[in-house]
Amino acid sequence: MHSKVAVVGVGQTTFTRSCGISIRELCFEAFREAIDDARNLSTEDIDGLIICSAPEYDKQRSPAGLIAEYLGLNPKPTFLAEAICASSSVGARIAWSFIRSGLHKIVAVIGFQKMSELTSAESQERMLRGGDIMWESPFGSMMPAYYAMFARAHMNEYGTTEEQLAKIKVKSGMYSMMNPKAMYQKETTVEKIMNSKIVASPLKVFDCCANADGASCIILASEEVAEKISDTPVWITGLGLASAPLSLASRKTVSSLSCAVEARKQAYKMAGLKARDVDVAEVHDCFTIAEIMAYEDLGFCKRGEGGKLIDNEETYIGGKIPVNVDGGLLSKGHPVGATGGSQIRTIVQQLRGEAGKTQVADAETGLVHNIGGIGLYGSIMIFSR
Amino acid sequence: MHSKVAVVGVGQTTFTRSCGISIRELCFEAFREAIDDARNLSTEDIDGLIICSAPEYDKQRSPAGLIAEYLGLNPKPTFLAEAICASSSVGARIAWSFIRSGLHKIVAVIGFQKMSELTSAESQERMLRGGDIMWESPFGSMMPAYYAMFARAHMNEYGTTEEQLAKIKVKSGMYSMMNPKAMYQKETTVEKIMNSKIVASPLKVFDCCANADGASCIILASEEVAEKISDTPVWITGLGLASAPLSLASRKTVSSLSCAVEARKQAYKMAGLKARDVDVAEVHDCFTIAEIMAYEDLGFCKRGEGGKLIDNEETYIGGKIPVNVDGGLLSKGHPVGATGGSQIRTIVQQLRGEAGKTQVADAETGLVHNIGGIGLYGSIMIFSR
Repeated sequence: MHSKVAVVGVGQTTFTRSCGISIRELCFEAFREAIDDARNLSTEDIDGLIICSAPEYDKQRSPAGLIAEYLGLNPKPTFLAEAICASSSVGARIAWSFIRSGLHKIVAVIGFQKMSELTSAESQERMLRGGDIMWESPFGSMMPAYYAMFARAHMNEYGTTEEQLAKIKVKSGMYSMMNPKAMYQKETTVEKIMNSKIVASPLKVFDCCANADGASCIILASEEVAEKISDTPVWITGLGLASAPLSLASRKTVSSLSCAVEARKQAYKMAGLKARDVDVAEVHDCFTIAEIMAYEDLGFCKRGEGGKLIDNEETYIGGKIPVNVDGGLLSKGHPVGATGGSQIRTIVQQLRGEAGKTQVADAETGLVHNIGGIGLYGSIMIFSR
Repeated sequence: MHSKVAVVGVGQTTFTRSCGISIRELCFEAFREAIDDARNLSTEDIDGLIICSAPEYDKQRSPAGLIAEYLGLNPKPTFLAEAICASSSVGARIAWSFIRSGLHKIVAVIGFQKMSELTSAESQERMLRGGDIMWESPFGSMMPAYYAMFARAHMNEYGTTEEQLAKIKVKSGMYSMMNPKAMYQKETTVEKIMNSKIVASPLKVFDCCANADGASCIILASEEVAEKISDTPVWITGLGLASAPLSLASRKTVSSLSCAVEARKQAYKMAGLKARDVDVAEVHDCFTIAEIMAYEDLGFCKRGEGGKLIDNEETYIGGKIPVNVDGGLLSKGHPVGATGGSQIRTIVQQLRGEAGKTQVADAETGLVHNIGGIGLYGSIMIFSR
């Protein structure tokens, strides 16, 4: 009875500073690409649409309805799923469940954000409201400040260095040059990064990802359908989702994200795999330190050895476990609601052998690590061909 | 393999104009009541939390994480589901699917809104952004104006009268006096309603529901678990969810909600039932006209005969099909994200035989009709004991 669930189509707009089009057009672009990516699939075949966005950035209220109409999907059901930066991973989890439970056969998950709708001051106000507005935000804590704290803790506990952080961005810059949909397609050096302006010490401008406009779309289908509309279905074999306290005061550590560790356990267990079985991974590098923490939270190395992993170039193609070979959030840009879907797209293309210059040879199993908020929501998904 | 899914616990705060507590406390109150409503259930048994809210009303960004922490649910997964006024019905659909697909055993769905956080001007601004902000909202269209248009169309097409609209509110007022959790517990008369101030002709103040603060919680469980933690599990036997174009210009009619008609078909089909099998119903009476349209959209009477149904008191207890015997949105108040859960709570109590003075004798099958936005999202759920 329980059907396996596959990704049968993926699409993504180019991520840009300011897209200059409306959110409905932005979503259409990603949707169209995903429909075309499957074989003989048309709009009418989609029987559910999940829209993923951090709604604080939208001027349109309840964008799901607006977008469903523009895509020609009425009267198909639609709604919004939100977990800040992990929104489209949550959307994928719901879609998986809708198919697995027999409620739907083919579901489209569109993630988007048009962050350019807001002024810089408005963006900062939104970021502040991401912390506990009663007990933490009043003290001015914002995303870079939180992650700077995580970085300091990691440096204190494990001797991680600013140069190691910079090396994450060097890798990101290198691979972004092979990704035509990345916002920044620019190589960089440790020296340049070390000399860039400080945002929240030890994090500098190049240690931080940037606001962006963009949309992603993934189309999921049941096993019976997938075989008909895709030559290369990519199966979702593991799902993990967990939460952590919003307040930092309630966390046991800030050098690791407990939500990611918990979600990893669930996902590996469900897939029946271990860290060493993963051939290629996308991790949520909203800041350089976040990628190093992810290496450890995912078990790609021992606790505290994330810095060494990048020193030894083990997360480059050809290394032990290639990570973010599409440039990651740091270079692609981070249109909040679109990011999870973009990560899934990269892994699906890798497992299909369609990743071109950044193809990881014989990749059979891929992992997506997508974090929402200040390590508040952690989603881990495992894919196999 | 596919487990049946039951509601095993329901809870709701009193709906009020201004609750005077924080959103986390508001949600806790509903959650606690739902936990206590089940037998031998504790917080640790909950393995997933879905938060339902129209986030434009929240000052806290991404409230799901905040609430999960306050309820003591970390590291259990959580996120937000949104379909404006139908948010908690969508949450229930997702929870059903999570359980049916085997991902979870026991899921709590909390809907809330603290509308008193906003000034009246801010509320109005949010309401405007519920229409298409590019093509409709600039002309000043708001919820009462939209529903006034629906009422005019219904009056023109079927001869429905303002007195018939008023009779809906008379019924609502009467039953609200038996609901200690309703915001307004006041009987009223056709005369009083007819003489109340015009909001958007033909709708007057008493034809409209009011903004409110409140939270609801329903706890869903798999069949195996439900039998252990409830003496009176209420089964979800039918689910329907559909969308309609946001723009009125794209709709074929405005005297009926196509999303409700489509969702009804899905739900009746899944449950293997017809309209006449429903013993008690909760419908989305955001305005008096909305209840009359719902009678027809659900097949409780023929198209155009909704006015007659209330004339003949067929939707009172003892009539053909009792509707909104808890006072409905019109008298309970309408804290957007909480409404669907509150409707489900009423039906669950009816099917358990726990509805006290408003008990519909021998109620075996109940229906919840919950609409989001301007007839944008339609959710129909069917419950059986």
